[in-house]
This record gives sequence, C-alpha cells and structure tokens, in this order.
Amino acid sequence: MSDAQRQLVEAVTARFGPKAAVTDRDAIAPWLGDWRGRYHGEAAAILQPGSTDEVAAIVTLAAKLGVALVPQGGNTSMVGGATPPADGSALILSLRRMNRVRRLAAAENLAEVEAGVILADLHDAALAQGRRFPLTLGAKGSATVGGLVSTNAGGTQVLRFGTMRGLVLGLEAVLPDGSVHDGLAALKKDNRGYDLNQLLIGAEGTLGVVTAASLRLVPAVMARAVAWAGVESPHAALELLRSMEGAAEAIESFEIVPAHSLALVLQHIPGTRAPLAGAHPWHVLIEAVATGADAEPPAALLERLLAAAFERALARDAAIAASEAQAEAFWRIRDSISEAERASGPALQHDISVPVAGMPDFMIDGAKAVEAAFPGTSAGAFGHLGDGNVHFHVRAPADSPVDWAARHSGVISPFVHDLVVAAGGSISAEHGIGQMKRDELARLSSPARMHALKAIKRAFDPGNLFNPGKLVSLAPDGADQ
Amino acid sequence: MSDAQRQLVEAVTARFGPKAAVTDRDAIAPWLGDWRGRYHGEAAAILQPGSTDEVAAIVTLAAKLGVALVPQGGNTSMVGGATPPADGSALILSLRRMNRVRRLAAAENLAEVEAGVILADLHDAALAQGRRFPLTLGAKGSATVGGLVSTNAGGTQVLRFGTMRGLVLGLEAVLPDGSVHDGLAALKKDNRGYDLNQLLIGAEGTLGVVTAASLRLVPAVMARAVAWAGVESPHAALELLRSMEGAAEAIESFEIVPAHSLALVLQHIPGTRAPLAGAHPWHVLIEAVATGADAEPPAALLERLLAAAFERALARDAAIAASEAQAEAFWRIRDSISEAERASGPALQHDISVPVAGMPDFMIDGAKAVEAAFPGTSAGAFGHLGDGNVHFHVRAPADSPVDWAARHSGVISPFVHDLVVAAGGSISAEHGIGQMKRDELARLSSPARMHALKAIKRAFDPGNLFNPGKLVSLAPDGADQ
Repeated sequence: MSDAQRQLVEAVTARFGPKAAVTDRDAIAPWLGDWRGRYHGEAAAILQPGSTDEVAAIVTLAAKLGVALVPQGGNTSMVGGATPPADGSALILSLRRMNRVRRLAAAENLAEVEAGVILADLHDAALAQGRRFPLTLGAKGSATVGGLVSTNAGGTQVLRFGTMRGLVLGLEAVLPDGSVHDGLAALKKDNRGYDLNQLLIGAEGTLGVVTAASLRLVPAVMARAVAWAGVESPHAALELLRSMEGAAEAIESFEIVPAHSLALVLQHIPGTRAPLAGAHPWHVLIEAVATGADAEPPAALLERLLAAAFERALARDAAIAASEAQAEAFWRIRDSISEAERASGPALQHDISVPVAGMPDFMIDGAKAVEAAFPGTSAGAFGHLGDGNVHFHVRAPADSPVDWAARHSGVISPFVHDLVVAAGGSISAEHGIGQMKRDELARLSSPARMHALKAIKRAFDPGNLFNPGKLVSLAPDGADQ
Repeated sequence: MSDAQRQLVEAVTARFGPKAAVTDRDAIAPWLGDWRGRYHGEAAAILQPGSTDEVAAIVTLAAKLGVALVPQGGNTSMVGGATPPADGSALILSLRRMNRVRRLAAAENLAEVEAGVILADLHDAALAQGRRFPLTLGAKGSATVGGLVSTNAGGTQVLRFGTMRGLVLGLEAVLPDGSVHDGLAALKKDNRGYDLNQLLIGAEGTLGVVTAASLRLVPAVMARAVAWAGVESPHAALELLRSMEGAAEAIESFEIVPAHSLALVLQHIPGTRAPLAGAHPWHVLIEAVATGADAEPPAALLERLLAAAFERALARDAAIAASEAQAEAFWRIRDSISEAERASGPALQHDISVPVAGMPDFMIDGAKAVEAAFPGTSAGAFGHLGDGNVHFHVRAPADSPVDWAARHSGVISPFVHDLVVAAGGSISAEHGIGQMKRDELARLSSPARMHALKAIKRAFDPGNLFNPGKLVSLAPDGADQ
C-alpha cells in the first residue's frame, strides 16, 4: 500500500468506521479478478461508503492524495471493466453497501434506487407493487444498478424498452473532483445544456461514480407466451420479426439460434430436447407479453401472427409453449448456448452489433469469411436479432488445445472486428470496452472519435484517477499514451 | 469584416463558388435577428456549405483563422440561440443548403437526412412511404433537422415517442477542429465509450455542427380522435391521464388549459367557440391515434376511456370531435393561447418542467406565489401536462405599458425560476438556453454542473469559436468569464 493509499484508508476508517474500508486479504481476494478468470488485479483495500455523502468525502480526499479508484458493483463485467490494475496503483471503491430502494412510486412508474441495488432485488421490489423493471440479463443475481448504468447494459429484453440508456430517468453521481452531480429528478423534458446523465451512462466509471438512479418502471406482465419457430435463414427471421413488430408492440424478445448451436445444446446440456420435430437451418425464440387486462392474450397473439407468417412462408414450422414449464424449457435452450459451446471445445466470443437490416448478411458472410481465413474453425452467430446484436463465436478446430482461444484471440478477434467495422457496426454492442477492447477501440475508431473521447476523459478526470486504463488509455498525467 | 473573416469568405468562395458565401447585406439581414424580434446580431457573411465535406473544410479553415461561427438552420430559436453576437465577431454557418433526404427506408423505420431538411418536408417524405416522423411543433414550416437535434426539440406529441433525443438513431457532425464525427449508423446497441451523439443532442451548436441525422420513423397514423374534457383541477387532469396511459399506448397528446386561457382565446381569436356547454375550471385536450389495421378505432378508445373516467369522477364533461374539422377546431384553441394572451396585454412566458407528479401542485401554488409577490399580475400555466412541461405565463396588471415585459422580466422571471428549482424542475424544458437563459442557468446550477458544462465546452472547443456566448459563457480564450 502506498503512503497516499494508507492515508486515505486511515482517514476513511476514522471518519466512517471499520465497515467503510476493508483491508483483510481474504475479504478482498474475490474482488480482484473478473468472474471469467481472465483478468487479475491488485488492490490493497476496498473502500465501501454507505451514502452519497461518504462517497463524495472519499473521492474528494482521494483526489487530494492522488489515489486512483476503481468503482465496483457486482463485479460481473464481461470486459475486465471492474478489475483493478495489476500494479496495485488503485483502490477499489465498492458501492455494494449503498443498496437502498429510496423510493418506488408505482403510480409514477418510477424507482429511485442506490447504485448497489442488485438487479434481481429491483425486479422483486417493482413486482411487489405491480410494476416491472424491464431489463434483465444472466448476471441479475449479482449485477448492480450502478454497473448496469455505467455499462449501458442490454440483455434479452431490449426490443421494446431499450437498453439502460432508455430506462434511466435521472442520475446522481460523484464526479472525480468530489462534487456531487444531482441529476436525479425524473424530468421528461429538460434542456439545460449538455446532458451529463447521458454522458455518465456507459462511461464505465471513468468519469466519476454513479451513486443512485431514477429508473423507469412499466406495468407488470400479466401473461406471457413463448414460441419457437424454424426458419429458412436469418433473412427470413428478420422478415418474420418485422411482420410481427408492425402488428404488435407486445413482442419483447426475438432471439435467433442456428441449427449448429441448437445441436450443441441438445448434445451437451442434460434434459434439453428439440422444440420442433423436424430439422431447420435456423431457429427463433419469440416472447410476447400482455400487461393490461384488455390486451389480447399473448398466446392468441402469437398464434395469429405466426399463422400470417406461414401464409407468407416466413416460417417453416412453429410451436407455442403450452405451459410455463415449456416456455422455460425454450428459454433454457437459448440461455445454454454459451455453456454448450464451452463444453464442446474452445471458442472466441464477440459481442457485436451492426444495423439491423444488415445483420442477416453479416451473420452469413461474416461466418464464411472467418472460416475461410482460419481453416478448421467454425463460426456462428446467435442472439438478439431484433437489436442488431449477436454473439459471434469462432469455435476452435477439432482437437485444439485448451488454450487455443488465448493463443489466437490476437489474430482472430481483430479480423472479426474489421468485418464489423466494414459493415458499419460496433465492436461492443452491450458489454462495453473495459480493458479487453480498449486497444481495439483505439485501433478502429476515427481520429475524431478518439480525440473526443480523450478530451472528455481529461475534462472530467484530469488526474486520470477514475478507473484508469479502462475505455481510453491516458498516461497518469492525462496526456495521451 | 475582420481580416480573418475576409480571408475565410474569400477562400470559401474561391473553393466552393459564390453560393457558398453570402455577403449581400439585404440577403443577410433576415438572419441577423430572432423571429420574435428580441435579439439582434451582426454578421458580415453567411457561409452556406452544400455538403459535409464543405462544412469540414470551412470549419477547419475557420479554426485556423480563429473565426467564430454561429450554426443556423431555420432560425426559429425561442431563446436567441441562432442569433450571432452583436459585435460582428462571428459569421453565420447556415446548413439550409444541405437539405437532402439521403435515404428513407420504410421497412427499417429509418430516415437519414441532412441537417437543412425542414421538419414539414420530413413529415411529407415519411408520409409518402406510409411512415411518420412523430415530432411536430409550431415552427415546422421553417425549423430544420439540425436545429431540432441541437436543441433536443419537443412539441405537442412527445408523450409517446419522446423528444428528439429519443428519435435520433445516429448523427454526423463536424467538430470544432474540423474533424467529422461519423455516428450515423443506426445501431440499437453500441457501447463504445462516451456517447458523442447524445452529447451533441441539445448542445445548441456549441460543440460543433450537426450535418446529418438518422431518425426513427413510426407507422403512419391511420385514424385519430380528439377529445376535449372539463376537469376539476390539474390533479384530476393528471389522474385522468394516468388512467388512460395505463390502458392504452395510443394516447399521443394530453394538453391542459385553464379556464382563463380558454376565455382569452374565445375573446380574441375569431371563429373559436367553447367545446363544452358548461363552465369548468380546467380543460384538457386529448388525442388518440390508431396506426395498425387491427387497432381499436381511436374514437371508440377515447369513448371507452372517458366513460371509465366519468365513473371515477375524473372528468366533469367531455366531447369527442365528431369530424376532422372539429378536431382541428379543438387544436386551434390550444394552439392559439399564446396569441390570445398577447392580444390581451403584455405577459412573460416561461418554458419550464417539473417532475410530472409535482406538476399539479406547481401549477396552483406557483401561480399563487407569483400573484402574491407581484400584485396585479395574473399567472397561469398550460401545455404538456403529461410531459411535466407547461408554459408558465405571468400576465401584466391591467393598463400596463407595452414594454412591461422588458421592464419586469429581470425580477419576475428569476422569481419563477426559483420556484421551479425549488420544485426540482428545469428552467428550460424544451426551448434550450441560448443567450436568453444563459445567466439564469449559471445562477441556478450547482457548481458541479457548471464546472462540468464548461469543462466539456473547453474540451471540444478550446478556442470558443462555436456559437460563442450561448449556453455557457467562456472568455474568448476559453477561460471562465
């Protein structure tokens, strides 16, 4: 621990009690690496403020002492975004103690919650009042609101209500100089200059730390229906989606799955079975919901829409889950794809997006290009077709060593990213940049964009003390590296 | 014209032809003041690039020569945001020649348009392909896309689809150093660091100039219905809105009108008549639309919702327009309030917002507070209740001189703004800051907020050359004033 770090820890303990600073090695250890085991950092202490005032006091003092801080929530980053630097030059600033739902106003469809509230707890709190927070993802049992905001999280239910950016109505944050940005008021119209809330959403804790958010709620789901359909191609899948979107706003998920991914799931995940009798080259999972008592029952809606789709030959076959258990079984297939792929051998994953209209071509042509460039690999994409966001996986040739991914990521991933950029897309659709994609972002962004990103970083955090080394690379004094 | 300005004009003319630089005094004159006649500026030339490349070349050269630029579209700002400085220190950069719809993809619900496209023309282009751009406002015949984006424009149809911020899917802009930010790709998910598009939306041309936008379209309206209801209070009106919002997404406008404003319209605007037979303290105008063939006809929907509202005593009386002509007549009342108020004597207008739940109290208590503080005045609010955005007007005492507003704005407006801030609201809901509210923004914002706004401005525009003096005040070298 550096002298400055020690001073900070001692001051925090003296002022806010022993709970506010953890220095026990065993207690710190689980928070030093990412959950996928790719990144390992070092930090001599975890600071755990219990209120916004405490955050502001800690940040003010850290700025004075020149101590770098790595904001952390549930530590579920997919890109090493919450892992401290390996050289121990930063302390972790954990928001987990700030886990109060400050206010949940059902009539206003509004929840004001602290950054440390876990997503699943927010779901429960909303449901208890007949409301829903309409964003969910695999890590919902650990991921916190602060992290979800700071990474502009997405997930499987973005189609209708958008990512976090569309669900944040207000934000409170502590900026790198220790000042408190109070933008919590949920104003539907507010044109007082540059939108600081929007700037903090997706900033990955590099411009300050989010301490609380006002979030949009929607009516609770009264019924849902899940369908599984076999389709000819990604192009047919997109046509199917458009036919449904045009007819109803109740479609909340539309996930595409290639035959190969389905086969891997059936092979590797116990208890799974094919939803349809025949073989189809591509599959889609569709979820429709009803929220009002007057709404068309979602199963009837899906039946109607699928019947129309058959008439237009957009689908080859389809089944609507006859029970909630069957609906869960359909979803389990979709959610098990990554696990099944891992079981079948090494693979490289890419969270990418392209404009929705270009996605079918990209899925086909991109896979072909990768397989041609790296003989023996097989490439495939699955996921959120309606969002133009798929997980593009490149699987190792048969009998590859277990470290295949680590050995080849430096060549294959840039190749995939180049394809994405050529298609007008993004190398990070929903996972963010963190440390994993930082250099690729710099390589693939226009000079105008990189200049602007760095200028913003420097403007907010001239000392480069907030989550240093993530998203953009600045030298410690704020200059370009 | 300064030497540097002259050099710039000559270079632009030489390179891009005489169309690209206007120096004729008569041609310039109409663009030197705002349309309400409150602000008068001076500029020796209007630069009129015809393409993004030309904009980039002009901005690069202007940056080199140190010439300040005032971006201008339709020049319909309500806050003097597009009026050049009075000392002639800036040239106008008009985007009006860039008025092409580059692409309108109905299947993708997407329009890519240049900054100079006029809103009404965008409406027409979308409608020709069975689509709608769902934002409209009084100045639609002049206001351009670039200005609408740069001011995050709102209007009377924000309830369902939001302000411009919610409708912009991508942006292209030229930054103050002349570099081109290409963020046009309409990606539904994109987490590549700070969202530059969001930062440029509402930046009022102080961080660069928007040259094109990818905009969201929605299905064209197949039918609409407009209702007028008498209600007891703003509280009852809000309850009525919530009862309707919970039941249907088809409610697109919900405007509140006090009895006094209705009376002024009936008195001053020829051809208007009261929509309801009896007298009511407050009124609301409600518009519902149908977009799909399967949708409930909007008149039937409104009838059903209003019947339910009567049962709960949320409305005193209501009428649904029996024809499109009557629907227009209802809207004409709403749209004529400002004109009627002007005819009845001087008044001060305030475009403000507070959290929706707090709006009814604010409308009542705020008006009382103003009338108590400034005896003889009468205060009232009308407008977009569902957005938490009303136009709060303070009318002069009887027989006040015509210059009453100019004489008293320095005292009354800050008083109103203080009330807004105390209610957790915004002193600019939809009109922006411009030059009119710049000092009030500085007075009423937290130091954290002002520090951040200025830091961003300096980071993007260190020479303070883009729309100087608007939004935030920096000295010419970028330091605080």
